[in-house]
Amino acid sequence: MKIIGVKTPLLKAGDDLIQFIIKNIPSLSEGSVVVVTSKIVALAEGRLAPLSAKEAIIKRESKEVIETPYGFLTLTKDGWCVNAGVDESNAKDGLILLPLDAFQSAEVLCRSLRQKFKIKKLGVLITDTKSVPLRVGTVGRALGFAGFQPLRSYINKRDLFGRKSRFTESNLADSLAAAAVLLMGEGSERVPLAVIQEAPVTFVGVGTSQTTKLSLPPQLDIFRYVFSRASSPRAKKKPKR
Amino acid sequence: MKIIGVKTPLLKAGDDLIQFIIKNIPSLSEGSVVVVTSKIVALAEGRLAPLSAKEAIIKRESKEVIETPYGFLTLTKDGWCVNAGVDESNAKDGLILLPLDAFQSAEVLCRSLRQKFKIKKLGVLITDTKSVPLRVGTVGRALGFAGFQPLRSYINKRDLFGRKSRFTESNLADSLAAAAVLLMGEGSERVPLAVIQEAPVTFVGVGTSQTTKLSLPPQLDIFRYVFSRASSPRAKKKPKR
Repeated sequence: MKIIGVKTPLLKAGDDLIQFIIKNIPSLSEGSVVVVTSKIVALAEGRLAPLSAKEAIIKRESKEVIETPYGFLTLTKDGWCVNAGVDESNAKDGLILLPLDAFQSAEVLCRSLRQKFKIKKLGVLITDTKSVPLRVGTVGRALGFAGFQPLRSYINKRDLFGRKSRFTESNLADSLAAAAVLLMGEGSERVPLAVIQEAPVTFVGVGTSQTTKLSLPPQLDIFRYVFSRASSPRAKKKPKR
Repeated sequence: MKIIGVKTPLLKAGDDLIQFIIKNIPSLSEGSVVVVTSKIVALAEGRLAPLSAKEAIIKRESKEVIETPYGFLTLTKDGWCVNAGVDESNAKDGLILLPLDAFQSAEVLCRSLRQKFKIKKLGVLITDTKSVPLRVGTVGRALGFAGFQPLRSYINKRDLFGRKSRFTESNLADSLAAAAVLLMGEGSERVPLAVIQEAPVTFVGVGTSQTTKLSLPPQLDIFRYVFSRASSPRAKKKPKR
């Protein structure tokens, strides 16, 4: 598997994203996954807001909001995240929100790129950078994708000694996102695009993969048992590390 | 960045791991990260147990144990995981445990490989496969590493428009693990090794990186506020998805 980060000029709010991608990725081969940061998808969509509206915007973008000493924990249609993904970093004058519908955006991009480059096996992955519960630091994750299967199932598959697996599924979309975000960075790198070649994924028609969402509700999550034993979440101050 | 999965013959319990790696990876260039699944590290260390001892072993390997409808949630020195990482899959007759000390094992491997291949910039990463809170499916994570910095700090670094970042750190070790495990698989793939070239990491001396652990205790985790609102963790039956 090969991952190539693509350094680009700055995308301006409202610029055409397809043109931007084609200009910066002049050729694409069969079996590639094009990775796009959610930030430039949002910029192209004009998903901007003034700094002063931050709290109101976060609440508008969320189905549920929990106020914590670290910021707002929010439930969006993409799962639980901090501040509904609304972010000041790399925003010129204010805030950049998350894309309106990252799955829809990935589909549109995937269709256009397949057509432009006349290739059939092409995936698009829109990435976000997230804090991972129980781990230090941030890792990339898939916010939307199109053109490939996001999960690899081992259900009922046999292991090296013929035992049937109890594993359910590998999350390929998040794994690819983690790998690509490593090269894209989170600062002033100017690498909002990447191309993954020879990714071990199954390519599918556009519009067939996006029904699988990768968010797990907390009430179905085994790790809630860990958190139920953690110290009271009512503390008003940040505990020290 | 390039990641090459290495298909190998089966490693047998007690086999010499260094010899196994050198045999299957005959050449290594400056700036590589060698990735090794925790399963073969544990096998080489003879970390095996009979199936009948499963519950006792899980408890022995854990600092804390929470019984849940999905299995035991356990706190090991590597953080919270399911069943203390004790696993039947790809174990010939019984259970394979986690390595005794994955950081120590990574150091020993890193020193030996640097010496054997006469290279200075070489990292070793020992991977595990984990369920990620709030996400469907499993993703690779770093269980131990040596020879490179696991985190990239953006503290006080400026973004594209000169604003200082509020980000703290990117978790590079987990991101590399996610990428490599994608190629190594979790079934009968027989790919327990991988080589990552051109990883965007800073190589350091062996014995200088392992003090940084990547586990975050639940009481310091912002996501505990989400789980405090989830349904009661006392349920005895698995809820349906």
